[in-house]
Amino acid sequence: MTVSTRTPSAPVAPSRSRLRPLGLDEVAIRGGFWGDRQEVNGRATLAHIAGWLEREGWLGNFDLAASGRLPEGRRGREFSDSEVYKYLEAVAWEIGRRGDDAELEERFRSVVARVAAAQEPDGYLNTRFGRPGQDPRWANLEWGHELYCLGHLFQAAVARVRTRPDADDGLFDIARRAADLVCKVFGDDGIQSICGHAEIEIGLVELARATGDERYLRQAQLFVERHGTGVLPDIEFGRSYYQDDIPVREADVLRGHAVRANYLAAGAVDLAVETADEGLLDALERQWTNTIARRTYVTGGQGSHHQDEAFGDDFELPPDRAYSETCAGVASVMFSWRMLLAKGDARYADLIERTLFNVVATSPSAEGTAFYYANTLHQRRPGEHADPDEVSPRASSSLRAPWFEVACCPPNVARTFASLAGYVATADADGVQLHQYAPASIRTTLDDGREIALEVETAYPAEGSVRVRVLTDAAEPWTLSLRVPAWAESAKLVVRRNGEELVQTWEAEPGTVSCSKAFSAGDVVELEFPIVPRFTSPDPRIDAVRGCLVVERGPEVFALESIDLVEAGIGATDVADIVLDASMPPREVDGRVLVAVRERHPEIASWPYGDETGMGSTAASVQEVALVPYHEWAERGPSTMRVWIPAT
Amino acid sequence: MTVSTRTPSAPVAPSRSRLRPLGLDEVAIRGGFWGDRQEVNGRATLAHIAGWLEREGWLGNFDLAASGRLPEGRRGREFSDSEVYKYLEAVAWEIGRRGDDAELEERFRSVVARVAAAQEPDGYLNTRFGRPGQDPRWANLEWGHELYCLGHLFQAAVARVRTRPDADDGLFDIARRAADLVCKVFGDDGIQSICGHAEIEIGLVELARATGDERYLRQAQLFVERHGTGVLPDIEFGRSYYQDDIPVREADVLRGHAVRANYLAAGAVDLAVETADEGLLDALERQWTNTIARRTYVTGGQGSHHQDEAFGDDFELPPDRAYSETCAGVASVMFSWRMLLAKGDARYADLIERTLFNVVATSPSAEGTAFYYANTLHQRRPGEHADPDEVSPRASSSLRAPWFEVACCPPNVARTFASLAGYVATADADGVQLHQYAPASIRTTLDDGREIALEVETAYPAEGSVRVRVLTDAAEPWTLSLRVPAWAESAKLVVRRNGEELVQTWEAEPGTVSCSKAFSAGDVVELEFPIVPRFTSPDPRIDAVRGCLVVERGPEVFALESIDLVEAGIGATDVADIVLDASMPPREVDGRVLVAVRERHPEIASWPYGDETGMGSTAASVQEVALVPYHEWAERGPSTMRVWIPAT
Repeated sequence: MTVSTRTPSAPVAPSRSRLRPLGLDEVAIRGGFWGDRQEVNGRATLAHIAGWLEREGWLGNFDLAASGRLPEGRRGREFSDSEVYKYLEAVAWEIGRRGDDAELEERFRSVVARVAAAQEPDGYLNTRFGRPGQDPRWANLEWGHELYCLGHLFQAAVARVRTRPDADDGLFDIARRAADLVCKVFGDDGIQSICGHAEIEIGLVELARATGDERYLRQAQLFVERHGTGVLPDIEFGRSYYQDDIPVREADVLRGHAVRANYLAAGAVDLAVETADEGLLDALERQWTNTIARRTYVTGGQGSHHQDEAFGDDFELPPDRAYSETCAGVASVMFSWRMLLAKGDARYADLIERTLFNVVATSPSAEGTAFYYANTLHQRRPGEHADPDEVSPRASSSLRAPWFEVACCPPNVARTFASLAGYVATADADGVQLHQYAPASIRTTLDDGREIALEVETAYPAEGSVRVRVLTDAAEPWTLSLRVPAWAESAKLVVRRNGEELVQTWEAEPGTVSCSKAFSAGDVVELEFPIVPRFTSPDPRIDAVRGCLVVERGPEVFALESIDLVEAGIGATDVADIVLDASMPPREVDGRVLVAVRERHPEIASWPYGDETGMGSTAASVQEVALVPYHEWAERGPSTMRVWIPAT
Repeated sequence: MTVSTRTPSAPVAPSRSRLRPLGLDEVAIRGGFWGDRQEVNGRATLAHIAGWLEREGWLGNFDLAASGRLPEGRRGREFSDSEVYKYLEAVAWEIGRRGDDAELEERFRSVVARVAAAQEPDGYLNTRFGRPGQDPRWANLEWGHELYCLGHLFQAAVARVRTRPDADDGLFDIARRAADLVCKVFGDDGIQSICGHAEIEIGLVELARATGDERYLRQAQLFVERHGTGVLPDIEFGRSYYQDDIPVREADVLRGHAVRANYLAAGAVDLAVETADEGLLDALERQWTNTIARRTYVTGGQGSHHQDEAFGDDFELPPDRAYSETCAGVASVMFSWRMLLAKGDARYADLIERTLFNVVATSPSAEGTAFYYANTLHQRRPGEHADPDEVSPRASSSLRAPWFEVACCPPNVARTFASLAGYVATADADGVQLHQYAPASIRTTLDDGREIALEVETAYPAEGSVRVRVLTDAAEPWTLSLRVPAWAESAKLVVRRNGEELVQTWEAEPGTVSCSKAFSAGDVVELEFPIVPRFTSPDPRIDAVRGCLVVERGPEVFALESIDLVEAGIGATDVADIVLDASMPPREVDGRVLVAVRERHPEIASWPYGDETGMGSTAASVQEVALVPYHEWAERGPSTMRVWIPAT
């Protein structure tokens, strides 16, 4: 096993890139918004997922496979193996995050052992295909998800080897044997096709990085380049559904299934970086830019079609039919993070932040044991209560559900939260860059061997102040860079030594503010920017929210829930009957964001189209009501809800 | 075979009702908007459908069944048999409409013979289930469509027996044998379940009417009453998908799959009428009222979810994601027509007219050989050209396609057009009611034996003038009633004899205007109402079209197509860049409807949310552009299109 010792214990480890990721052994989040979520994830969510994998038989499938009892008794959908692998990845990162934890380590090894027992002598590994009585291997590439499952296996194996390089659990070898088979079957002279759900591409490049084996990189390249050549059949949703409509390097924007599109893009960035393929990287940057400018919700959510879980056309972003799948949020973070490492632009970190706060953090309940699969921006009817003991057949459940027939989202959230420290900061030859703000300890070594240790203190996003305490002395100057969020109207950087101001920088432009200095231990770098609630308007081409405003505060998007109308004593009890008074900006009182609203009294009409005079009236009196951060909505029971509020 | 000779040769023949339908032997449409479409339907569409049924093997499935070769070689989806039955129904009506046509008669009989050969000794008839190697009979009621197919078989058989009572082709007996089996299998002591797709209910009641066999009515009652008791499994879309969430008599509004919902409602009206069940009829009236007030597009289209082809929540009517399935339009006409017969209110005829002009007439191309399955109200990208020789895998194809993998819509349009004369007029004890305006000959006999003959002359909807020439003398007064459409601002009724004005009535209120007289042959009753283009606003609760207007003219909804922007020499070539000047009402010049618009110049933004100042500008200069009737859109090649236009 060839593992580079210089590889960070982080989700993406490019062999070359503009920025170098810092691993979980270099960055630790210490409490705060994200630290609390990591804690819940490690304490509750991982056990919750393990319980459901067992209960639903998706883990049991491996035992049936090992004992030759399949296909009888196999449970779950064709991609259920992948949830086991995502769980393994999450646990691997969690072990890396926590340090040694005998119980978690034991749980990890026991699952790996069950997976190992199901692998066939030639490396094939899937509980759904290939046995007598089952569909044959690789016969249904468009829907079978065999390669997709392996992609997740590879990611899990890479997570493990990066956090515990010396582990002897065998997962890495399982992955390699499966990858070797894939290269044999789908190589230059093999089946000239792809998987209907991208993911193997990421897994193969990461495996190539972790092993140094160029075959895996070549195989990833074949898969990426075959996309868009029409190797899969045309279907109801069109070939765009699985990105087999336009070659990756020719496409201008992401389209089709939003998770597939982002996984493919992420894998293609990995490939472009490893092969120094600037043309491919340019194409992906262009796609990212257009997707963010035209096909992304204000939450960072992506996918506006329920039918095919897909992107809509440009500016087709209906809030009430927002699919905004949690997994698409995770996948978008994966794509953006790879672009950030490759290019260094703060805009990628901006989108990661927006998506983490308003999509990924929205999915799990406060307890970490129920999840949104889809994340609507407008709830017209109070949602039903999800039974905490029942599998939801509905992806677009209107309350968080404990588990789904298609349960991709819970383990996707879990692996993201467990590895979240890996997205906080990076390094380059010249210093350290802070991208996400959370209380954190950072300790890394620059390429020239200089050790740098930092302690980040912040109450972000409650407050817009970030203090970075330098813990190490430096003889030579190095550069500390901090992101100024795109929404910040101003930002001030101050460096203090022993209470004395050494440097003061005003940076009005969002982007990056940097300070180069021979820092001494005890120096404090403080970035301050105002965080106040603000109205945001939509581009007029977003038809579905014409005449509406959204309230944002820092990186958080806010929502109006009907329960707060009741609490405020407003006559109307449904968000449908509320209009925002745009002349009064939102204000913050005792940590709550308040807006001025008026009641609307609709007409009871037999036909909802006519001349304007018969369309009801709006009350003259203005009342104040509190909004909640969108990621907290539906935590107090069924409510109607809207993010975009009609404004007068 | 017991067939009441008093049964009209019409799609619905209640044994009691407020209004009595007139059959195809009593009403004939003579040219005009609908006559032309009937002509195209009879000349081109029926042959087109027959060709595709043959080519796709859906007819051939019956031959395979007859010769014992199934399941090998069976083609098409589980409900493909139903398309053959809908085709038979359409041909039956067409034979009724045209009078004797040896070639059509021969075609009809040859298909019936192939169907007959596939029926099993116990009456079972379905090419997809029940044979060795196939799924067993009735084992998959939620998705199998077996009863749904039989419902269409029954409708076809009833159409045949009503138009050719003495035909010896055997179709009616095939239907009876199948219905007898259904009663045995699903009766009081049988399988306590329903079909996932309502339709059998209509078929059974109509078969009960045509045979006088009460068992069929009882069976229809069982199926209707079982809906909403949770007999089918919960699924991703919820039990509302197949109306198994709430009992029919308890529901307040249609929900779930829009075709299923309307078919069930239509069958339930049939049942309520035959069993004099006023409570059930009240429930259906309430559902109709709420569905029209809150869940229907301005076109009359229904269904705002692509995912499950379903109704959305109240006021969830996004134009760009309008599913508005053609079949849902047909089904809505079926439901409304039954309510009209039962209650007599003009509002039902108003909706039928709106739906016929703007949904059903929109589906087929001018040539009658390509069809919309879904009918969007907003096309953001120019649609692709559909290959006239290829099956479309996409229901929501952006141009009309010759055939679909799920091809319910073409034969549904065909059977509606062929029987359209049956929706024009009704009679009661006191006279004749005109509901739809088309050049037509009407000849019927009132209950007391009086013969009445009328000739309707009109250029509707081009002009709002309807002349009814009475061809028969009457000794006693009788009443001629005409519908005043809901959108008519005024209406004038004049009766003339030898050019002299006998009666003049002004009726400003939409609804029905009536004239009771002992009419003489040669009398002319003339109804006039202005037809001018008008702006229509949406209820403010329809979020998706806030700030937009639609242009209507008479019963027709209009649309802006990008091709007309180019033609008008307006700089903008995409409807996305156009704003309506609401201060200038639409006007009509040389038969074209013109509106005043201004160009919008959007900002090129990297993120489409921000403060209002950065959202682009609108040109000061106003230009005029022509709109097209919505049912004519996309006849001139790919265009972007919108029905609802943002207005300033």
